[in-house]
Amino acid sequence: MHDDAIVRTTIQELVIANRALAAENVIDDFGHVSARHPLRPDRFLLSRSRSPMLVSADDIMEFELDGTPVDQNGRRVYAERFIHAAIFAARPEVNCVTHHHARSVLPFTVTDTVLRPMFHMASVIGHAVPVWESQDEFGDTNMLVDTLPMGESLARALGDGTCALLRGHGAVCAASTIAGACLVSVYLKENAEMVLNALPLGAPRYLTAGEVDKAAAMLLSPMPLERAWTYRKAKAGFHGL
Amino acid sequence: MHDDAIVRTTIQELVIANRALAAENVIDDFGHVSARHPLRPDRFLLSRSRSPMLVSADDIMEFELDGTPVDQNGRRVYAERFIHAAIFAARPEVNCVTHHHARSVLPFTVTDTVLRPMFHMASVIGHAVPVWESQDEFGDTNMLVDTLPMGESLARALGDGTCALLRGHGAVCAASTIAGACLVSVYLKENAEMVLNALPLGAPRYLTAGEVDKAAAMLLSPMPLERAWTYRKAKAGFHGL
Amino acid sequence: MHDDAIVRTTIQELVIANRALAAENVIDDFGHVSARHPLRPDRFLLSRSRSPMLVSADDIMEFELDGTPVDQNGRRVYAERFIHAAIFAARPEVNCVTHHHARSVLPFTVTDTVLRPMFHMASVIGHAVPVWESQDEFGDTNMLVDTLPMGESLARALGDGTCALLRGHGAVCAASTIAGACLVSVYLKENAEMVLNALPLGAPRYLTAGEVDKAAAMLLSPMPLERAWTYRKAKAGFHGL
Amino acid sequence: MHDDAIVRTTIQELVIANRALAAENVIDDFGHVSARHPLRPDRFLLSRSRSPMLVSADDIMEFELDGTPVDQNGRRVYAERFIHAAIFAARPEVNCVTHHHARSVLPFTVTDTVLRPMFHMASVIGHAVPVWESQDEFGDTNMLVDTLPMGESLARALGDGTCALLRGHGAVCAASTIAGACLVSVYLKENAEMVLNALPLGAPRYLTAGEVDKAAAMLLSPMPLERAWTYRKAKAGFHGL
Repeated sequence: MHDDAIVRTTIQELVIANRALAAENVIDDFGHVSARHPLRPDRFLLSRSRSPMLVSADDIMEFELDGTPVDQNGRRVYAERFIHAAIFAARPEVNCVTHHHARSVLPFTVTDTVLRPMFHMASVIGHAVPVWESQDEFGDTNMLVDTLPMGESLARALGDGTCALLRGHGAVCAASTIAGACLVSVYLKENAEMVLNALPLGAPRYLTAGEVDKAAAMLLSPMPLERAWTYRKAKAGFHGL
Repeated sequence: MHDDAIVRTTIQELVIANRALAAENVIDDFGHVSARHPLRPDRFLLSRSRSPMLVSADDIMEFELDGTPVDQNGRRVYAERFIHAAIFAARPEVNCVTHHHARSVLPFTVTDTVLRPMFHMASVIGHAVPVWESQDEFGDTNMLVDTLPMGESLARALGDGTCALLRGHGAVCAASTIAGACLVSVYLKENAEMVLNALPLGAPRYLTAGEVDKAAAMLLSPMPLERAWTYRKAKAGFHGL
Repeated sequence: MHDDAIVRTTIQELVIANRALAAENVIDDFGHVSARHPLRPDRFLLSRSRSPMLVSADDIMEFELDGTPVDQNGRRVYAERFIHAAIFAARPEVNCVTHHHARSVLPFTVTDTVLRPMFHMASVIGHAVPVWESQDEFGDTNMLVDTLPMGESLARALGDGTCALLRGHGAVCAASTIAGACLVSVYLKENAEMVLNALPLGAPRYLTAGEVDKAAAMLLSPMPLERAWTYRKAKAGFHGL
Repeated sequence: MHDDAIVRTTIQELVIANRALAAENVIDDFGHVSARHPLRPDRFLLSRSRSPMLVSADDIMEFELDGTPVDQNGRRVYAERFIHAAIFAARPEVNCVTHHHARSVLPFTVTDTVLRPMFHMASVIGHAVPVWESQDEFGDTNMLVDTLPMGESLARALGDGTCALLRGHGAVCAASTIAGACLVSVYLKENAEMVLNALPLGAPRYLTAGEVDKAAAMLLSPMPLERAWTYRKAKAGFHGL
């Protein structure tokens, strides 16, 4: 493929990811999805400031890994682009980051119940999802991750995992592919709902450590990822792609 | 803009607000949304009596701040227009009022759990949402706020806040802009659902007072409001506006 | 109106009621809605055996008040037509009956919590909804109300109320108008969901007896009924009617 | 009917079943539905590897009762086809098998609450739904039933019932007709949701053993099955069929 075609393909997939996560009710008026630039790993692609459901290819901008827009041209940018910047900087193998306020994860950010995978599809969230507390380093804020130091602090909480929760705010998800980050985002949400429903019946038996590792390795392999991605593209209205 | 255009624009936004809150399941067969008249602050605009999902520009009527229709022309009016009248009279800075029966807020009107913001998007509901008890001044009623004294009593419960709950009935929301009142309405509902889901896990940690103030100031500023409003207009089918 | 037009109008409203309750998720693959014949009070109108979502005017048949089809013509009839027959026979003022399995009411049929109205819109269900236990008179059955004696037993449980629950089965709703029976059906379902959501917060304060009576009288009066019915017709796709 | 027409009809029904269970949110990106070959009971029909919502007649392949594809032609096959193979081999009277991850059943796979029918429509799930624990014979796995011995172990847990749960994974449903397996699948999901909602009110009274047997025999008879199947086909967009 020509370089132009490579970039166009990534942008197209990124647009689909924005709309697919909106169609799955992971993302709503706020939240965003980014992809590392396919040719320049020191840059990432992210929409200008608008709701993911409405993002088109023309909205996608380039950013450096400190959150600086490469060619702003007067466009408004997301205040929280530093989430993406800091994770792409800290994690060379990550190529897609999502940030969202999926309702079902919020209870796990403000209580002491640790979110763990209760069924195999959620193995992709890892053994236990960490919670980032903005108060620890930054005290009372407007709750946005709107500086690079805040993004870097959040990236440390994420560590080498696929997702982390933000207290009283939402979640970030990260993976080496766009399809993978979307799968993590969807099943993080689904698993949280499921655990909330199970708790009245008593403490659930979560997947064992071995099951988490084996199931996650299987689900993040090409064939399951492609099946899920084809499905989500169709649900978001991108049938032919 | 000519005066006519100013009024037409407000009416159009008000129609969209009616339909957007229906699309968000905040409002259903009953409930209503009003806006202060943009040129005559002693009047407000409100649909004739019909479900918000079905409201068109032709349905919008003018009312005085005691609930009297300016030019009724035989049209049926909402029995509860006094909610809007009393709030607009008491709060000169308020330009939009919503009244609805969003299901998730009802439990907080009939139990002792105080509704507080559990995530940053809900900071716009304020520190703790007051509950108005119609029994206190009016005893057994048909539960409608269908007189000016009842509207005034409710407005006192609202105080200088952005929302209040009505015991066994629903909620009112108020803000200085139509987009703001819709944001408060949506996130009041979302936050209530979230708290209901979190309570089985133990008492949630709500936002701190400082976080509520800072996040609300940020969210009710032009850029976030515009992002949310553009999204809600699109969801309600008003793409080009 | 000519007699033919009167009957056609009732049949059209009955078809809309079938589809409106399907659109509200009150009714699904099973369940049914009937209307008393507008000219012959000793007969009622009910679809042949098919899911309410799919009912058209051509499906509507006439039945006598013992459940006998007037002109069967080889058409399959609902096994549970006796629910309608017995209620129309026992309650001359009732002109519409619905039977459904709305999910949210089922918990109140198999536990000791009595379903009561928690918000004003649900005042139309009455002070406390009775539960009919088929075991009491009929022992182990296939749970269908498929004989006239079973229908009559259920009608006694309903008494002079607007609704009753069937243990391990669902509900019946009855009112003097089609719009009224639909309003009762929708708010029976909504109120049950709301109480289920409120219970984890502690025992809810239900409407007082005086509030129930006053709010129900208001809601079942022409103006609110028409607003709700116009809304439900529109939601079910019958905009012009 | 000619043999070709018989097979085409089964394939068409199978495609509809795939899409109908997707429309009912029983099945999503993963999960599958199979049918025994109508002319060769030693074979079954199952889609190539793709999400059920997207399955068309061209995707349907033939498999032997050990999971071997008859004519693979380079097509990707479901890793879990052994679920279907083993159940068709063990149960000559079963002609349709579904496998899915309906969210509401998961809590019953990881806690000690046994899933039982709480309303008559769910009598088709049987008296108590068994749970298959993959750890017992296979230890830590990737949680897929991707070998014939695993499929056979699961088939033993199913026994002569209509459904079984898989710990931390989902469910299988089986019946003598496609319409019947879909009915079991839908009401397994609905009943699980209902029990989850009822438990906070106290232990529910489930159907008696006699009620389960009588109601299930009635519901799995031709007339109710046809009503439900016609409804589900319409909901999935197959109106004329």
